[in-house]
Amino acid sequence: MRRSRAFIPTTKEAPSDAVLASHIFLSRAGFISQVASGLYSYMPLAKRVIKKIENIINEEMAAVGCEEVELSFVTPISLWEESGRSEKFGKELLRFHDRKDTMFVLGPTHEEMMVDLVRNRVTSYKQLPINLYQMKIKFRDEARPRFGIMRGREFLMKDGYSFHASYADLDREFDMMEEAYKKILTRLGLDFRIVEADSGAIGGTGSKELMVLAGSGEDTLAVCDSCQYGANIEIFLGAGDEAQKDMVFTSVKDIKGDDICPQCGGKLSLTKGIEVGHIFKLGTTYSAALKAEFLDENGKAQPFIMGTYGMGVSRLVAAVIEQNHDENGCIWTKETAPYMVNILISNVKENRQFELGEELYKRLKNSGVEVMLDDRKDRFGFKMKDAELIGFPYTVIIGKELNNGLVEIYDRKTKINISVEADTVYNKIMELTK
Amino acid sequence: MRRSRAFIPTTKEAPSDAVLASHIFLSRAGFISQVASGLYSYMPLAKRVIKKIENIINEEMAAVGCEEVELSFVTPISLWEESGRSEKFGKELLRFHDRKDTMFVLGPTHEEMMVDLVRNRVTSYKQLPINLYQMKIKFRDEARPRFGIMRGREFLMKDGYSFHASYADLDREFDMMEEAYKKILTRLGLDFRIVEADSGAIGGTGSKELMVLAGSGEDTLAVCDSCQYGANIEIFLGAGDEAQKDMVFTSVKDIKGDDICPQCGGKLSLTKGIEVGHIFKLGTTYSAALKAEFLDENGKAQPFIMGTYGMGVSRLVAAVIEQNHDENGCIWTKETAPYMVNILISNVKENRQFELGEELYKRLKNSGVEVMLDDRKDRFGFKMKDAELIGFPYTVIIGKELNNGLVEIYDRKTKINISVEADTVYNKIMELTK
Repeated sequence: MRRSRAFIPTTKEAPSDAVLASHIFLSRAGFISQVASGLYSYMPLAKRVIKKIENIINEEMAAVGCEEVELSFVTPISLWEESGRSEKFGKELLRFHDRKDTMFVLGPTHEEMMVDLVRNRVTSYKQLPINLYQMKIKFRDEARPRFGIMRGREFLMKDGYSFHASYADLDREFDMMEEAYKKILTRLGLDFRIVEADSGAIGGTGSKELMVLAGSGEDTLAVCDSCQYGANIEIFLGAGDEAQKDMVFTSVKDIKGDDICPQCGGKLSLTKGIEVGHIFKLGTTYSAALKAEFLDENGKAQPFIMGTYGMGVSRLVAAVIEQNHDENGCIWTKETAPYMVNILISNVKENRQFELGEELYKRLKNSGVEVMLDDRKDRFGFKMKDAELIGFPYTVIIGKELNNGLVEIYDRKTKINISVEADTVYNKIMELTK
Repeated sequence: MRRSRAFIPTTKEAPSDAVLASHIFLSRAGFISQVASGLYSYMPLAKRVIKKIENIINEEMAAVGCEEVELSFVTPISLWEESGRSEKFGKELLRFHDRKDTMFVLGPTHEEMMVDLVRNRVTSYKQLPINLYQMKIKFRDEARPRFGIMRGREFLMKDGYSFHASYADLDREFDMMEEAYKKILTRLGLDFRIVEADSGAIGGTGSKELMVLAGSGEDTLAVCDSCQYGANIEIFLGAGDEAQKDMVFTSVKDIKGDDICPQCGGKLSLTKGIEVGHIFKLGTTYSAALKAEFLDENGKAQPFIMGTYGMGVSRLVAAVIEQNHDENGCIWTKETAPYMVNILISNVKENRQFELGEELYKRLKNSGVEVMLDDRKDRFGFKMKDAELIGFPYTVIIGKELNNGLVEIYDRKTKINISVEADTVYNKIMELTK
């Protein structure tokens, strides 16, 4: 893409209510635009990041045999009455009437819808297991939407649901999905922990959260320094509201009570995390309520045994930046970068600079590298600040040194500038980005 | 995908209100599931078709420099009040209040949102043109939702909007987008016409509809038998309600008045079409109303000159089937097929049949062919009917003839069965599907 034609409205001002780095930089760098409280539009750069995340999720879901569906977002309230959640969900569940005065809700999660899709269509244990997921917007009418796209009202989520004939089969699927989720976060280049989210016995827990480690995270985690064990602090301290938990976190240095890793005996310490996923053994809660049953080997009707697997796609965009930024802006990981390479022509009026920029741009593009060409007439310093703010992993700087046959490659993460001969820059970039 | 693990709930019964082939077959073949009046969920096969259509649209949009965004679906009513459309849209515009009693609407189209995204962010003629689009659900609270996903309330649409500094530049973009839209429908394998949708002078019309030709179409078109000219019958007969138009269509054999093609002088005749796209020169209607302006070359503030480019993604799924089906079910085009090849093992208890099926499945899958393996224990006739209903372009039948070293390849479109030697079937399929 040519920067002169791209819609990337960078700005110096951050939203007045922005406290998180992701909120500040995603707004300033032209990724997101606030529409109303908790409502955001994704501009082209954000949309590219989202699609990269979605592609990785899709690949890993296909690899473990999951099938993608897309459920209607507007959902009949009747399904929520069947499950008994209409009351329980409270005001977060946005209700409205259509022109015929029938009540609907905007789907905040889709257990009911997915159970309704499967009931009467899967009728025998022979058709099990199945694992269906979707990637679609959700709406939760949060009382206090905040932190930009970290906690919006309309957000993009991958939600998946599996159906089984036995608990043993659910356990197998749950472990497989945990591995798939690990692969996704690893591929995204994130530092994360999978933590126990309830107080189930070790090894037998039915609720795990995927936490991207970041100082700004809303969750406090007890993690083992020696092994991969981690648990949400709530399971040590019991449930409490957020203010309480914050107080606990600031007032204790070590977790109370059990400060020994229950898995390896190592030392536990406290850290902060952003919940980007949650996998959970639902059992028969929804299938029993909605009378969604199959015939077992003995011909007896049984409610489906279910698991659920969620991942916050738009929240992941913010989580990448919470974990990867500096005072100048975003630092995208290679798998999440909206463009891998930015070619910055220092002075577009200099013919040699301009021509090399154009040539390199076309060559990289033809080689499948996602590349931006900053061909704007603005001065070098302005364009460089822009590149820092947006956070391209690599910027090729074509400037005065071209007179000596040299250009620079700037690495956003390490902030290291290397000087390379102009005629080797293509090969060098191909090497760095492969 | 193995059919034994796939969620493809085919059924003999069609919905009681289904009259269109697409509604009947997409329901019976396990593509779509009705949730409520005008609300559908897409099951795995439909989701695959949708993604294929989306990919083609994305590729062609990228090729002409368009950028993808994603606008919030929940939209503040205030934007609709600014444009004056809040009243005009009537009850199709679904309004609701959030928990803080602020009024929102479910976006039925996004002109206001897109203008709002761009205003104050693009401020100079130097930043123009830009062309932004999204692929997202819309909601229109239709008084009479019908025809399955052909006219639903929640539906998936590609909507694009371009911004220009001059009408000449809009004209250039409009022509380019018309070509891009032609490419998309051609790649999808559809027989279509682009027709004039208003009575503008020849060559200067600012509103064109993309019509997939099908007897079940709701629009009546006057098309030239000699050239590509076509026009919506409304522009000949003047506006009228649908009942009137139906009456006209059934009562006239030739179009009234001007039955000579205004482009080449050829003969015009009547046909039916399904509107799957609409491109339209908006001019400054929305930008003026929302005071979205840029500074022109003379430093004078001017409202953006806009074009809009819509394409019905979920409707296209139905349109493919309206144009391509027979009494047994769907006939997918190569570019839209959810799976290109179905391997049907006639009797899975026959070891040789089973082994060849498995081997061919793995080989084709590794070669990147989208393949289904029907490994169910059901009898041949049942599985074959299922394959016909779903509409895989090719079915490899591995049956008794394998004892003579032969298998069959069934072409869904031509209904021709060819017998090939088992050890050449892989190459033959690779050839057919490339």
